[in-house]
Amino acid sequence: MRPAGQNLIPGFHAARETLSKAGDAVREIWIASGKRPGRTRDMIQMAKERSIPVSFRDPAEFSRLFPGIAHQGVAVVVEEFAYADLNQVAARAFQGEVYGLLVVADHITDEGNLGALIRTAAFFGAHGLIIPGDRSASVSARVLKRSSGAYVHLPVVRVVNIGRTLDLLKKKGFWIIGASGEASRSIYGFDWNRDLVLILGNEKGGLSRTSQKRCHQMVGIPGSGHVESLNVSVAAGVILSEIARQRGG
Amino acid sequence: MRPAGQNLIPGFHAARETLSKAGDAVREIWIASGKRPGRTRDMIQMAKERSIPVSFRDPAEFSRLFPGIAHQGVAVVVEEFAYADLNQVAARAFQGEVYGLLVVADHITDEGNLGALIRTAAFFGAHGLIIPGDRSASVSARVLKRSSGAYVHLPVVRVVNIGRTLDLLKKKGFWIIGASGEASRSIYGFDWNRDLVLILGNEKGGLSRTSQKRCHQMVGIPGSGHVESLNVSVAAGVILSEIARQRGG
Repeated sequence: MRPAGQNLIPGFHAARETLSKAGDAVREIWIASGKRPGRTRDMIQMAKERSIPVSFRDPAEFSRLFPGIAHQGVAVVVEEFAYADLNQVAARAFQGEVYGLLVVADHITDEGNLGALIRTAAFFGAHGLIIPGDRSASVSARVLKRSSGAYVHLPVVRVVNIGRTLDLLKKKGFWIIGASGEASRSIYGFDWNRDLVLILGNEKGGLSRTSQKRCHQMVGIPGSGHVESLNVSVAAGVILSEIARQRGG
Repeated sequence: MRPAGQNLIPGFHAARETLSKAGDAVREIWIASGKRPGRTRDMIQMAKERSIPVSFRDPAEFSRLFPGIAHQGVAVVVEEFAYADLNQVAARAFQGEVYGLLVVADHITDEGNLGALIRTAAFFGAHGLIIPGDRSASVSARVLKRSSGAYVHLPVVRVVNIGRTLDLLKKKGFWIIGASGEASRSIYGFDWNRDLVLILGNEKGGLSRTSQKRCHQMVGIPGSGHVESLNVSVAAGVILSEIARQRGG
């Protein structure tokens, strides 16, 4: 990851979401020079109201900073992505009217998958996402863009050691539930009405041994049997939906 | 779309799935020269058993043919992707032990999304996927790769006119159900035990007016309210999972 990209969020939708939901963190708005006003007009108006400077930049700069990303000639400059504190997130998960729900991404390396997972977890109202500091995608510009701005609704915690983190959450009273293609217990037959941590494995190897050892229960999504597995963000959506349904969604 | 790419499927997993599940359609296997044997050894063995020629190619050729695709130095050459016949797919959907389930991708333009949708629909045992011929991604090499080989388990029908297709399926006895973020009827409260066509809208505009007019019922996925929508393949997974659950998955 190029560190400079960490605090630039490209793409129209992600930029607008950031501006409207986390405006305080926005330092500047970049718009490609020569871009037709159209969709950027509202954004410039919002910037004016918040006294945020708008800077018109060479389109070539966008291409260089965001190779292969559909930036649409729009980006916002924000403070470094602020990871949340584990204890605070865990405490808040206990305080709500509904049962606590934390999601652990067990070494998900694909940035697109991590971004889609953030969007999905935020959609279903998870209280936080936990990612490991190593062998994992971090919350980069591409991840923020792929989350469609949803990251502003979901605290993300980065931890040094997944095993120790799960031990701590277990001690705090969370149930540790692992999702695995091989589990015989179906997600439909499990009672999700409890404070819980849902662990999702990575694209290739599934759950790490470290995580598996800490699970109270492993659950799986029953399929037709023809296809081995689902994409990790799709699997997250399926399980989070079942949790929401059982909790009266 | 480059037509030549239509019958080349890049990527280790997609190539192996094709070889093992649809070996008859494979004309040749390409492996980048200089690639270490490792994971390709099995594949070469399978090719030998099936008398399929293996061709070692310049890695530069892979880069040129699959720009931006993680091809891993492996591809299979197959017959042109064979779209299925609507009437046959509809007839087969009625014949099974479970209720019929067809998915319509209402002008999904992103190839990654279409590939992920194929994988998801195949995982949950849908009987077929219907896509329109225009303003839609077609089943390209990138789509096949993103489906992780799942396309061999899911007939894909390409139709000229979505409206007329829905009219036809309605006449055959299918219920037409549209997924929409704005629908007040929850997917959890709807009875999915009937022969049905599930229509998923595109990334930007949702369901087309043509489709909406044909729906017996519109349904939505209840969320926390913070985030507007889900990625289309995640939404598909959530709804197909609820269908499978109600049907006794």
